[in-house]
Parts: sequence; structure tokens; C-alpha cells
Amino acid sequence: MIIVLKPGTEEIECAKIKNKMTELGCEVNEIRGKNHHVLGLVGDTSRIDANLIASNRNVEKVMHVQEPYKKANRYFHPEDTILNINGAKIGGGNFAIMAGPCSVETKDQIVHTAKAVKAAGAHFLRGGAFKPRTSPYSFQGLREEGLDLLKIAREETGLPIVTELMTIDTIDRFVEDVDVIQIGARNMQNFDLLKEVGKTDKPILLKRGMSATIEELLMAAEYIMSEGNENIVLCERGIRTFEKYTRNTLDLSAIPMIKKKSHLPVIVDPSHAAGLWWLVEPLAKAAMAVGADGLMIEVHHDPANAKCDGQQSIKPEKFQKLMGDLKNMANLFNIKI
Amino acid sequence: MIIVLKPGTEEIECAKIKNKMTELGCEVNEIRGKNHHVLGLVGDTSRIDANLIASNRNVEKVMHVQEPYKKANRYFHPEDTILNINGAKIGGGNFAIMAGPCSVETKDQIVHTAKAVKAAGAHFLRGGAFKPRTSPYSFQGLREEGLDLLKIAREETGLPIVTELMTIDTIDRFVEDVDVIQIGARNMQNFDLLKEVGKTDKPILLKRGMSATIEELLMAAEYIMSEGNENIVLCERGIRTFEKYTRNTLDLSAIPMIKKKSHLPVIVDPSHAAGLWWLVEPLAKAAMAVGADGLMIEVHHDPANAKCDGQQSIKPEKFQKLMGDLKNMANLFNIKI
Amino acid sequence: MIIVLKPGTEEIECAKIKNKMTELGCEVNEIRGKNHHVLGLVGDTSRIDANLIASNRNVEKVMHVQEPYKKANRYFHPEDTILNINGAKIGGGNFAIMAGPCSVETKDQIVHTAKAVKAAGAHFLRGGAFKPRTSPYSFQGLREEGLDLLKIAREETGLPIVTELMTIDTIDRFVEDVDVIQIGARNMQNFDLLKEVGKTDKPILLKRGMSATIEELLMAAEYIMSEGNENIVLCERGIRTFEKYTRNTLDLSAIPMIKKKSHLPVIVDPSHAAGLWWLVEPLAKAAMAVGADGLMIEVHHDPANAKCDGQQSIKPEKFQKLMGDLKNMANLFNIKI
Amino acid sequence: MIIVLKPGTEEIECAKIKNKMTELGCEVNEIRGKNHHVLGLVGDTSRIDANLIASNRNVEKVMHVQEPYKKANRYFHPEDTILNINGAKIGGGNFAIMAGPCSVETKDQIVHTAKAVKAAGAHFLRGGAFKPRTSPYSFQGLREEGLDLLKIAREETGLPIVTELMTIDTIDRFVEDVDVIQIGARNMQNFDLLKEVGKTDKPILLKRGMSATIEELLMAAEYIMSEGNENIVLCERGIRTFEKYTRNTLDLSAIPMIKKKSHLPVIVDPSHAAGLWWLVEPLAKAAMAVGADGLMIEVHHDPANAKCDGQQSIKPEKFQKLMGDLKNMANLFNIKI
Repeated sequence: MIIVLKPGTEEIECAKIKNKMTELGCEVNEIRGKNHHVLGLVGDTSRIDANLIASNRNVEKVMHVQEPYKKANRYFHPEDTILNINGAKIGGGNFAIMAGPCSVETKDQIVHTAKAVKAAGAHFLRGGAFKPRTSPYSFQGLREEGLDLLKIAREETGLPIVTELMTIDTIDRFVEDVDVIQIGARNMQNFDLLKEVGKTDKPILLKRGMSATIEELLMAAEYIMSEGNENIVLCERGIRTFEKYTRNTLDLSAIPMIKKKSHLPVIVDPSHAAGLWWLVEPLAKAAMAVGADGLMIEVHHDPANAKCDGQQSIKPEKFQKLMGDLKNMANLFNIKI
Repeated sequence: MIIVLKPGTEEIECAKIKNKMTELGCEVNEIRGKNHHVLGLVGDTSRIDANLIASNRNVEKVMHVQEPYKKANRYFHPEDTILNINGAKIGGGNFAIMAGPCSVETKDQIVHTAKAVKAAGAHFLRGGAFKPRTSPYSFQGLREEGLDLLKIAREETGLPIVTELMTIDTIDRFVEDVDVIQIGARNMQNFDLLKEVGKTDKPILLKRGMSATIEELLMAAEYIMSEGNENIVLCERGIRTFEKYTRNTLDLSAIPMIKKKSHLPVIVDPSHAAGLWWLVEPLAKAAMAVGADGLMIEVHHDPANAKCDGQQSIKPEKFQKLMGDLKNMANLFNIKI
Repeated sequence: MIIVLKPGTEEIECAKIKNKMTELGCEVNEIRGKNHHVLGLVGDTSRIDANLIASNRNVEKVMHVQEPYKKANRYFHPEDTILNINGAKIGGGNFAIMAGPCSVETKDQIVHTAKAVKAAGAHFLRGGAFKPRTSPYSFQGLREEGLDLLKIAREETGLPIVTELMTIDTIDRFVEDVDVIQIGARNMQNFDLLKEVGKTDKPILLKRGMSATIEELLMAAEYIMSEGNENIVLCERGIRTFEKYTRNTLDLSAIPMIKKKSHLPVIVDPSHAAGLWWLVEPLAKAAMAVGADGLMIEVHHDPANAKCDGQQSIKPEKFQKLMGDLKNMANLFNIKI
Repeated sequence: MIIVLKPGTEEIECAKIKNKMTELGCEVNEIRGKNHHVLGLVGDTSRIDANLIASNRNVEKVMHVQEPYKKANRYFHPEDTILNINGAKIGGGNFAIMAGPCSVETKDQIVHTAKAVKAAGAHFLRGGAFKPRTSPYSFQGLREEGLDLLKIAREETGLPIVTELMTIDTIDRFVEDVDVIQIGARNMQNFDLLKEVGKTDKPILLKRGMSATIEELLMAAEYIMSEGNENIVLCERGIRTFEKYTRNTLDLSAIPMIKKKSHLPVIVDPSHAAGLWWLVEPLAKAAMAVGADGLMIEVHHDPANAKCDGQQSIKPEKFQKLMGDLKNMANLFNIKI
């Protein structure tokens, strides 16, 4: 950590800061320039809150040398983390496909779709039971009943189920019934929720918030990991920019960047990123080409009558065609799918 | 609502869409251009989910004429909403100041600060008990004990207390002990939490998410109001942009825009927006000049040793000076402070 | 075009607006709802300036049905535009690679690099002679001399040359000496420059501004085309967002979106987008997978001593390896490279 | 400047970097931590191109201690720069108002408006002759004739005129006829244009690009100043964000930030920022309250029939009322207006 002092900071004030740093277990190196006076901290600074230093009125700025996350940091954990969920692997060269409808609507719908995506080669069934919707007047999901229907679809197909947890008071039910607990983009910094799922041993699918930096995503993972649960899959799903033709801007450069900074697997959700069904196919292929560890894709039999997000859902036939293309790409890239 | 059909949409498909709209209670008007075929819906479309229409593959785009929020909409409620909280008014020309430390640290600290901000003319005491922090290794607040200390400060000063609720399982305690429940920026779209506070009759301070549009902020208010609680104060606290010199970009044009679109009062938090103590004073004045209904300001006796956000906290003497300046401005602008 | 009138607009004001629209050659359809009064315009509205309508105080908003660009619009020009530049094709399934150093430094450097990228399979030589640099104290390019050196490299290799034009007063020299004139991101809305290159018959490489929407990029192309020059290649090179780990955020969803909206070819510049050499390879592959018509890649023999942007340049050996991978992908995707 | 080396960088590579820095005239200090090896440079680093260091593959990152601008930097020039243009002062407590139409349309229009804004107390007449328009089909300004009409309006009122220069080939005409040369947002990084106006002695009004950081704005000023012209007024006019209700997001925190970092005066253009006439008044007041040195406001007699940007223009009566309010505020704030 580098501390830049304001020009003209008195020696006595500088000494106070140095003492404080020494007490926190750091060794302090000084660099005195003509205009600037800089303190360089040596030691483990990952647990030092930079804001506590920046609050000193003699400090001009504080700059990180080390990343603020530790358990999620590849530097301290060089090998890829590989999750094995009921036999389906994610990470370390294993490409996982999660597919299914935006929301669970009926037993027929979810079972039918589960069979179709399984037949096409998907490894997980996704489906929303509790739905975060921008408007209180929109369909909010079947909730508890949705979980029941997902379980039936799992029984029928053997596909592990992925679904979103929105609030702490339903966590026990999720731990019991669900295979992968999804934390949605809007809850990426719902820190109490992160801590609670961190106390479970369930695999967590953590989506990047729509205005979260990569560093904040990794800090959210660190929250979960700091409570003991290291079974995390990250998910890039588009960030908010000024561009209006697409719902969000899919940040594919985040994929190789995350893999450089962290050992955790990371997948891509092209459906939510673009918000348009015909963009799913090219973005899914680009996600594999850029090095993602998997995809999460919305599939619906009758998008025009879907209860949510039909405009970004593809039909099973289109999904099947896409899976074929992805398998050919995986073959070329030497990826297990 | 305006529905633009894809060029070449067949009559039979168009008829299906028209029937669906009629079933939803809308009258359909058609405009047929050389290149485009447009359907205009007449009637109350505020409860129609535009996505359900956009999911039809023959629909090119759906455009809103009417805003998607209703209870929060000034169009249906032309008079300013005025909140009266233990005698302190917000809205309709009443300017309210909420001041206090980022987090409650000790009994002495919070009582001392409460007395200082009251003496300077603040109307509410703010102070965080449960703190949303980016890093799991940062101070997380005194939590339950923090609420106890806030109550002591209220007893000593009579100032109503404002503090952030982070999760549903502590809501009963907040309803009993707190005067204004704050929903933080990171929870602006924690819809279950919004619904729960919507079932109480407590005043709610709803902060704009750091990447939320004004429309989404008003939709979040609509969530609370749709459950029955209309005692809401909105708060602009800066949005995320590419600018790096400030922590966030305070969006002051949002204030007159929100007041045009909605009847709810809206205040400004210059401390979190800028992230730098010396920007608080000019931004606070600008907030009053632009038409805000109040301010939320972080005040700390010893910012250099604050447990959080010291770099954006001002000292009581500076706060007192600012209050004097704001009173002079309020006098000029004919605002009650 | 849809015009939404303010609630309560008087009939006489409405009639004035309708007359104005009729004079502009549009047929006006009215939709009268309970709360809103809407005018729908039928006819060619692409040349109507929406701002001229929005300026009427009785107009609440103006919404486009038709896109504001015409010559660049695929709707009026369904087939892909294919450029053929000295035998090198771009668009319509032809994938073109432009490679070379950020800036021309010496004769040896540019000739050496030109030979290396040609050997690896590049179709164009890129190299900056006039360099737009953020700091006036940074290397500004060899300017006129740089053009001379590029010509030598072209003679030695036969590769057509692509280089950036920054100002109108050097345009004659560019028309004479250069094969593709690049308009840089910072000049995407330098409208006088766009018009001038529109009067030439040179192929233009038009880069997206770092905060330009796709619509604005297509309007910039429209500027050039409106003067007669339709030989345009668009280039996505990253947009500005709040993310700090990468220099810009490469917007790959823009590629299929542009190809849907326009017939013009579009390539990707992964070097400038990411600003980091090790991100070039995965992003280049993703660009091909997403459907781009080509790539622009910075290649330098000795990046550590490059005069600009060495951190985003790859070495010739790495470029050769990448070309091999791209050829394999092209084979799978049935793309001509 | 702080150079962070990659973990495991060999001594010989480190020595090479140290030598290079020493050759550039810097003294090198080393800090060796357990995980990181850091080089701190002492000396004048403002002219060192950080990219040249970052391009070394052993360098993990380069961080600035000193700002990259020098002539624009308040650190080296602590007193406020005050411009005196034909007796109208800007900066150092002098608040200047520039008002007039978006574009010059007719002699009557510009003379009439000039008289009206002068009567209300404006210090400068603004009016566009050369107009940068998003669409080639929109009104492009009267160009040369517009300059003639502005001169007539100056003769009639004595108001100095401010108008935008778009391209180098008209610069002589501007130097002869115009009092303040405006560089528009779209040309903020048109570096050749910046250098050319830097060679004149005309006052320059430099607008912030719509996606420019404050640092980039100051670097653009540095470009002009590096050629000798230090008569610069900066202008904040809104930045591009995801918010859709306003055209841009006015960044008022940029004002005190710029005044902290630089000695140059800075004004605000609320008309372009918001894009809506009824937002001009509150934003203008907020701009004064936040500490701006002036305002640029669009005024038109008949906005509904303006040839451009009528929706953001206010009428002379409204401008007169605003001026009265601003004078009262200036009186309270002890500002000369």
C-alpha cells in the first residue's frame, strides 16, 4: 500500500501515521521527493481498510499495490478451482451449460423444458421460482411452489437445479432442495445474504452486479469465502452503460481478467446481458472463445407467451443447434463440454 | 403504449396481438406507414408488463407513453407529499437536515455528535448500526448495540433517528426503535425488503442505487407504496460513472426531474456522493439551490480516527458553519429550514 | 415518428403541430387516450429533425419508429456491403486482418513488422504516422515522414496501408498515399472531417467514439455517405465504463447489433479496447466468434521499447500463433480469411 | 511515480528498468515487500509517459503520484487565473454570464436576442455559426454568414462574442472576428485544433468532452497552454451516463474539484447538460452555489421555431428573471456579477 502525503505535511503528523501503520503490523518505507512525500507499506495489507488511512487530513491519496481480496486471489491459490456438482464439473477446462426458462410457470413447462435441454446436452436446469422484478405489478414467480416443480423436473431428468435465493428467511429451504444457489445481480452486495450462504456448503452462483467492478465482484466472493464456503462460480451478465440498443453491455474482457486475478470459475449469461434472443447465439460462442467456463442460457418453448423475459429466451430447437455449434468449438479449443 | 411491428408482419399475427391487448382492457389504434405498422394502446397501461408484449417475435419494439409507476406519479397526485416525523417536516417547502456519523462507535461519540448537530440546527440524527461494507474485513457496525446507543442519543436530544435496515429478519426491531428506516443504495432493488417495509407504517428513506435510473428509483418507491406505505423520502447519493477523481457523480439534475415526475420529497447525500469531506459544503449548497427537500450529512468529531468513511465526514464546527450558510440561503429562497 | 402531447394541450396548439407535420410531408394519425394525446407520423421521417418538434412546449416527448440513418441502414440496403481494397476483401463473409505497430518509428521497424505480419497472413498494414495523444508531452508520431515510411513498407510487401487522418489540411496527402483512411475514435464526431473524407473515394475505417452509441456511430457513417463515399468499414474499439481493470470495455454485442441494423462491414480492435497485450488473443477469438468482419491488431517487435502503447502490443511470434488459431476457427465457422 | 514489478521479476530486469529511469532524470527508491517489489521515482515525472514504462512485461502497474498536467496545475500556480475580455472578467470571484441562441439564424434574431440578454445583465453573447450536428440532414449553421451577423450584434450591443470553431481552416477568420473561441465537447481531444488555438492569443472556452474525465479535460487545456496560450476558461456541460430522463448528467462536483486541481476558471452550461429548458434555472443556481465562475445559457425568442435545440432554450423573460435571482444569490455569496 502506498500512502501519498499532502505537500507540506509536518514531520509530527507524518510520524503519527507511521506509528499507526507500524502498530497494524506493517513496515514503513519512505520516499521523499521534491514535491511529494510517500510512505510505502511492506507486509500483509489485505486486511487494512484503506479508508481508515485516507481519512487522515494529511493524506492525499492511498494506492493499492496488493489486491484487497485474498481467498479469491489467484496469487495465493494458483490452481483453477473446479466444482463438481452431482458429477457436473465447472472450471479447469470443464465447460458447463445451465439452461432453462426465466421462470418456472407450470409442471408441464418445466419438465418439458428440462427434458429438452438435457437432450441437447445441458448440464444444469435453471429456472426462477422467486423473481426479482422491476415492477411490483409484474409476475413475481411461483415462489415455494416453483421450488417444488423444479424438484420434480430434477427427478425426471437427473439435472441438478440452479435457482435464485432472494432473502435470508428462505435459505433453509434452498439448502435442502436446491443444487446451486444463485445470488442475483441485484443482491451482489446484499452482504448479510452473502454471509449466510457463506455458512452453508452449497455451490453458489454469484452474478456480477450491473454496475459492479470486477474488484467488487471478487470482494463479494471474498465475503462468502470468508465465512468458509469456497464453492463459488462467478457469472458475468452485462453491465450498465450509455448504450441503448442492448439492455446491458456484456463485458467479455472481464472473463480473461477474472481468470487472471482469481482461481474461481466464471460463466457468462448472454440472455440477460443482451436482452434479445437473437444475440444469444453469437454471444454464447464469443463467451466460449474468450475463455469462459460455462454459460447460462434462457430456453422457453413458447417465448411469446412466457411470463417473463420471453424476448431474450430461445426455443429448444435453437438451443439444440447452438449446443451442436458449441461442441464443435469445444472440440477445436480442446475444452470438455 | 406504442407497439411497433416488424416490417412484413402478417395480418394474422397482428390480429393475435391486437386480441391480446383488447383482452388486457386496452383499446387498440392502428397506424400503418409505408415501412412500419404501429399499434397504439389507449387505456390504463401502467400495470401491463411491456416485456410480455416485446417477447412476441413480430414486435420490433415497445415504447411507453405513460410512466410505469402510478402511486409515485405526480400526474395522479399533483400536490407535494409532506412527511411529518415527530414534528420535523420534509417536503412542500420544508427543508430537513439529517446529520451524524457514518457509523455509531461508542455512547460518548453518538451522544456528543447528536448534541452538536442538534445545536447547529439539524432535524434528524443519522448513524449506521448495521453497515454494508465492500470488504468482509472492514468494520461491520455495532449492529444491535448500535441501535441501543442511537436510542440513548435520541433520549438525550429529542432528535428522531435514521438508520439503515439491511435484512428482513431485523425489521421488527427497527419498527419498534427507529424513527426513519433507511434502505441503502445497495438494497434499492432488494424487492422482498421493499415489500416488507411497505407493510409497516414507518417513514422510509429510500436511497437511489448507484447505477439506478430515476425511473427505477421511482419503481422501487412504487414497490413500497403498492404494499400500503406511502411515507417515503427519496435520496440522491451519486451514481457510478467513468470519472475517477470523485467516488461517485452526484446527479443534481435528478432533483428537479424527480420533483416533476413524482410528489415524493427528495433529499441529497453529498457525503457519499463525493467521498471527500471538502466537497460536502459546495454540494450541500448546490443541493438546496437546485430544489432538494433536505440533506443527509456525515459529521464526526475526529474523522481521522473514524471507524468508517472518515474522509467524507466533516467536523461539527464545519457543520455549524454550513448550517449558518444554508439558513441564509433558505431565507433568500423562501425555504423553511 | 410518435409525438406525445402534454396532458391538457389545447386543440388549437395541437392543430398547429399537425399542420407543421403535414407541411413536412407527413400524414398524421391521432390516438386520443384518457390521459394522453398522441400523434403518429406516417411517411419518410428520416430527414425530420426530432429536436425541432420536441422544442414545442406542448410536446412531452418524441419517439422514433424509424432509425435516423438511411444510407447506412440495412432496411434500405439488405445485402452486405463488401469492400475490395487492392484485392483484400472485407465483409460478406470475408475476414480481414489489419496488423502493425501503434506508431511508425523507423524504416527498419515498419518494414520488418510489415514483412512479419504479412508472413503470418495479415491483409493490411496498420501504423500511426499522426498520433492523437492525451498528453502534449508524449510522442506525437513521425507525421509526414511516417507516411513516407509506410509507403516503403507497402512497396516491400504489397500490403495496403491503413493510417489515421487527424485534420483536414493533410487530406490530399492521405488520398494520394494511403489505401485506407482511418478516422479515430476521438474524431468520430468531427463532422467537418467526416464530410471531407466523404467527398473522396477512399475506403474509410471509422472507429466508434469511446462514448458513442451504436446509433451515433451509424450517424457518423451517414455523414460520410451523404457526401457520396460509401466505402466504409466500422470499427468497435471499446467504450468507456466504470470498470477500471481494463482501459475500455469492449462491446462485442455491438457487432451483431450493427450487422442487424446496417449493411456496412464492422471489425474489432482488441488492442485499444483492453489496453493489455495478454487480452488481445482471447478478445480477437471472441470477435471472430461473435461475427466480426475482421480485426485490427497492434504488433511490435520490442514492445518494452515501443514509442507508444507497448503494453497492448503483441510480438510477431504471438501474432503468428494467433493467426493460426483464427484460421482454424475460420475453417470451422466457414469464414474466408 | 510508483512502479510495481511483477512478482518474481529477476534482478537483471529490475536493474534495466532502474537504469532507464535514471537516464530519464529520476532518482529511484526501492521498496521490497514479501510479495511485491516497488520502485518509487523521485524528480519531475510530469513529462514521463507512463505507458512507456507500463509496456515493460515485468511491470505490473504504474501509479501516478504527481498529476500529469503542469501548466494547468494549481500546485505550480496557486493563484486563480482571471481573464479580462474587453472588460468582462471571469474567475477569481468574478461571475460571467454568456447567453444567446444555440445558432445564429437571422440578423433580426441575433441582434434582438443580444439586446435582450444585455439588458438582463449578460456579459457575453453566445451564438453558433458553425454547428456540430449528429445528423447530416440537420441544420448545420449559417457558417461564415453567421460570423458576420454576430459581428453586427456585437456592434449594436458591445457584448463580446463567443462562438465555436470546428476546424483549423477557419481559424484565421475566428482570430480576427471573434472574442472568445469555443472548442466544443466533440473536439476536446482534437489535438491538432488544440495546438493551433494554442498558438493564438485569443481566450479559449474549452468544453469538457461528454465522456472525458476531469484529468483529460485538464490535459486538453495543457495542450493549448503548452503552445503558449494560457487564456483558458473550462466548461462543464454534462457527461454521458446510463440515465435516460436527462440528455446528459451535469457533473457539478467537477466544479470544486477542478478549482482544487487547477487555477483556470470554470463555467457551467446547464442548457446542453440537461437538454430541457425547465431544468436550466435550477441547475444555473446550483452552479453558482457550487462555486462556478460563470454560466453559458441558451436564450431564444421563439424556442418552438428555433433551428436547433429549442427544447433546451429559455425565453428572454425567463432569462431576465433568472438573472435577478442569480444577482441576489451573488450578493449573498459575495460574488461579483
